[in-house]
Amino acid sequence: MEWRVLARFVVQSPERVIKNGCVIVEGDRIIDVGKEELRKKYPRYEEIDARDCIAIPGLLNAHTHAAMTLMRGVADDMPLDDWLGKIWQIEGRLRRRDVYIGTMLACLEMVESGTTCFNDMYFYMDAVADAVEKVGIRGVVSSVFIELGDEERGERELREGEKMIRSCHGKADGRITCALGPHAPYTCSPDFLLKVKERADRYKIPIHIHLAETRDEPEKANKAFKLGLNGKSLVEHLDDIGFLYSNVIAVHCVWLKDKDIAILARRKVGVASNPVSNMKLADGIAPVPEMLKKGVNVGLGTDGAASNNSLDMFEGMKTVALIYKALRDDPTVVAAPEAVGMATVNAANVLHLKDLGALKGGKKADLVLVGLKRAGLTPIHDPISHLVYAARGSDVKTVMVDGKLVVENRKVLTVDEERILDEAQRVSEDLLKRKG
Amino acid sequence: MEWRVLARFVVQSPERVIKNGCVIVEGDRIIDVGKEELRKKYPRYEEIDARDCIAIPGLLNAHTHAAMTLMRGVADDMPLDDWLGKIWQIEGRLRRRDVYIGTMLACLEMVESGTTCFNDMYFYMDAVADAVEKVGIRGVVSSVFIELGDEERGERELREGEKMIRSCHGKADGRITCALGPHAPYTCSPDFLLKVKERADRYKIPIHIHLAETRDEPEKANKAFKLGLNGKSLVEHLDDIGFLYSNVIAVHCVWLKDKDIAILARRKVGVASNPVSNMKLADGIAPVPEMLKKGVNVGLGTDGAASNNSLDMFEGMKTVALIYKALRDDPTVVAAPEAVGMATVNAANVLHLKDLGALKGGKKADLVLVGLKRAGLTPIHDPISHLVYAARGSDVKTVMVDGKLVVENRKVLTVDEERILDEAQRVSEDLLKRKG
Repeated sequence: MEWRVLARFVVQSPERVIKNGCVIVEGDRIIDVGKEELRKKYPRYEEIDARDCIAIPGLLNAHTHAAMTLMRGVADDMPLDDWLGKIWQIEGRLRRRDVYIGTMLACLEMVESGTTCFNDMYFYMDAVADAVEKVGIRGVVSSVFIELGDEERGERELREGEKMIRSCHGKADGRITCALGPHAPYTCSPDFLLKVKERADRYKIPIHIHLAETRDEPEKANKAFKLGLNGKSLVEHLDDIGFLYSNVIAVHCVWLKDKDIAILARRKVGVASNPVSNMKLADGIAPVPEMLKKGVNVGLGTDGAASNNSLDMFEGMKTVALIYKALRDDPTVVAAPEAVGMATVNAANVLHLKDLGALKGGKKADLVLVGLKRAGLTPIHDPISHLVYAARGSDVKTVMVDGKLVVENRKVLTVDEERILDEAQRVSEDLLKRKG
Repeated sequence: MEWRVLARFVVQSPERVIKNGCVIVEGDRIIDVGKEELRKKYPRYEEIDARDCIAIPGLLNAHTHAAMTLMRGVADDMPLDDWLGKIWQIEGRLRRRDVYIGTMLACLEMVESGTTCFNDMYFYMDAVADAVEKVGIRGVVSSVFIELGDEERGERELREGEKMIRSCHGKADGRITCALGPHAPYTCSPDFLLKVKERADRYKIPIHIHLAETRDEPEKANKAFKLGLNGKSLVEHLDDIGFLYSNVIAVHCVWLKDKDIAILARRKVGVASNPVSNMKLADGIAPVPEMLKKGVNVGLGTDGAASNNSLDMFEGMKTVALIYKALRDDPTVVAAPEAVGMATVNAANVLHLKDLGALKGGKKADLVLVGLKRAGLTPIHDPISHLVYAARGSDVKTVMVDGKLVVENRKVLTVDEERILDEAQRVSEDLLKRKG
C-alpha cells in the first residue's frame, strides 16, 4: 500500500516536530516527510486524515515478559521473595498454549497503546513468535536461559536457542528477530555466559540479560558461582571476563556505581530501564540521568504485567520524567524530549533495530496516531509535553506497523480481540487453579 | 429517578467488594447495596447493566486549581522560580470568562475520568461554581486569599469570601459548597489566618490552605511576617497560634518532621497530598505512609494542570502506590486498598463531605462504572488491584452524580463537549498572547 498521512503534528524525533505535517509511506517504508503540502506530490496515495492527531514513531518496549499478562494483579504489594515464590510456582505450570494466549493478550494491549515493537524474554518462544506474527506487530524474542551452572542444561538451552533462531529469526517479513536470553549473572555461570556470547556473535544477534536489579545480586552471584568478587561489582566482573560489548541489552541496571556506568558507556552496552516495575517491586531506582549524561544508551521498558501491571509506555514515559525530578531535587532532569527519546530512538538503538524509532525517510513505516480531541489533551501547545505528561495509551487511535494498518480508530484489525480476551480470562483462571 | 445498577464488582469501600453486586438508587441517595439478586426487590427501577464493569464510589480530587487547565503544558521541566514567574504572569491576565472556560474544561476531564467532586482554590469562584453546576459534578470552591500582610487587602478578600459563601454555598442541590482559601503561611499573616479561622467557624466551612510544600517555606514565612520561628516548623507555629483544627485542609505537607505529623494527627487536620505535582515540580515527597500510620487523614489530589499535567485520579492512585515502595525500600507500603481509600473515603473526610466516598445505603448517589473489557484489564482477579495498578481514567464508562447520569458510555450528557474544547483552545491561545 501507498499512504499519505496528514497530522496536526508529526514528531519525527523528540527534537524535530513538524506542525501540520505529512508522512508518505510506500510498502513497508517511510519515503518522505514534510509539511502538509507534500501530499500534492503523491496525489494517488491513500490518505489518512489525522489532522486531530499527533503522528509519532511506533513506541518500542525495551523489556517485557509478554505472557505474564496472565498473572496481572495476582501478586501485588508483597515482599520480593514472596512475589518470586508465587510467580515461579505459577510459571512452573505454564504450557505452550498459555504462553501463546498470554502473549496475544500482551500484543493487543501493547499495540492498542502505541507500542509497535517489544523485546521479550520468556518460555515457549515459538508461541510468542506466532502471537507476534498474528497480531501484526514486531518482537525481539529470546528464550530465557537459566543454566544454574549445570553444563548439560546450558548446552540444551543453547541448542534450544539456536533452534529458535533458525525457525524465527527474520520471520513475518522481518518483524520477528531473535536474541539470546541468559537470565542473569546469578543464574548463569561465567563460562556459560561466554558461550552465549560466542553464539550471539556467530548469529549476529543481541544478548538480553537482567543485570543489577536488586542490591543483593552480587552476593547471590558470588554464592552461586564462587566468582571471587571481593567487592567488585557484577558489571566489573562481566567486563573482566570479556562479556560486555555493544550487543548486550542489560535490563534494569539499578545498582550501579560510577565506574559501572563508565564501563557500560565504554562498552556501548544498551540498557533497558523499567521504572514502574522497579518501583513496584522496591528494587531501587536506576541512575538513568547519570547514564544518559555519560552517553549510555537507555531505552524504556515496562517489564512484565505481573510487576507493573500495565504495558502502557505512555505511563512509563511520565513515570521516568517524574521520578528523577523528585529524587534529584531538580525539576529539569529527564525532560519530556528525553522521555520520548527513551521510548523511541534510544529503545530502537538498544534493540539494534536502527530502522525504527523515528519518522524519517528510509525508516520502517511504524507509525502511531495519538488523538488530541479530549479534555485532558486540551489546550495543545507543545506535542512533546502532551505525549509525556498528559496523554495515555488510550489516546492512540491508529497504528501502522511495517506499512500495514493494525489498529484503525481504536479497533484492532488483525485478530478477534473479544475472543482473545475471553480466552485469556479462562486460561488465567485455569493456570491459577492448576496443580503443579 | 430510581435506578438499579448491576456490576461485576461493587466496591463499597476499599475493604468491602461484592462480586456480582447491585446498587439501588432513589433520587440523590443510595438506598440499598447487595448481591445481584437485590434487583428483584426493585422490579420497576431503571436498570443499568454494567456486568462488564467495576462500580466504585465517585473519586474525590482533594486539591486542584481547575482553571489552570488553560496552562497545561506551557511550563514543564523548569526550576520552580521560573515556573512560578511564568504562571503568575499568565494568571495576572486572567479574566472571569477564562476561568469559566478553563474550569468547564477541567470538570469535563475530571468527570470523564471518574472524579465526581473536587476541591478548588482559585480566582473568580462564582465562575467556577457556574461551571460545576453546568457540568453536573460537585465542587468545594474557595477564593484564594493572598493577603501579604496588607490588612486592607485582607479585609477585602474576606468580604469577597463571605459574598461567595452567601451566593454559592449549598447551590446546585448542594453540589457546591464553599471553603475559605488563605493561600499559605508565607503569603498570609498570622493575624489574617486567625481572622479566616473566625469566619470559617462562623459559617461552619473548611479552610483550604497550602502548607509545607517546599523546603524553604519557613524561611520565606519568617522573612515575610517576622514570625520568630527560631527553628520551629510552620506546623508548630500554626498550632501555637491556635490555627490548626479539624476544619483545616492542609495541602501538600511535604516537609514535615515527626512532631509535625503528631500535631496534624492530634488536631485532626485533613491533608491533601498531590504526589504527581510534587514530583514534577521537585517539591519533595510527603511522608504519606508515616501520616497514615499516625492516623492523619490523607486524601489524594492532582493539583492544577500546569504542574501535573493531568487531572486523572487513577494516575494519582498508581503514583502514590509506587513512589513510597521505591523510597522506603518496601514493596508492601501504600498497598492498593490504601490508594483507593485516599481517592475516596479519605478525601471525602478531608473535605468534610461524609455523605460521599463509599457505595453504601444512605450515601449520596455518586457512582462510577469502570469498564473491564480491555486487554490491559484482562484477566481480572482482584478489582482493587486493577483500579490502582492497571486501570486509567479512560476506562470510566458511566458516571452518576447526585443520582443523575452525567456521563453515559463515555459521552458527557450535560454540556456540548466539542464546543468547550474548541473554545478552551482559543481562550488559552489568547491568554498566552495577551498583554499583561
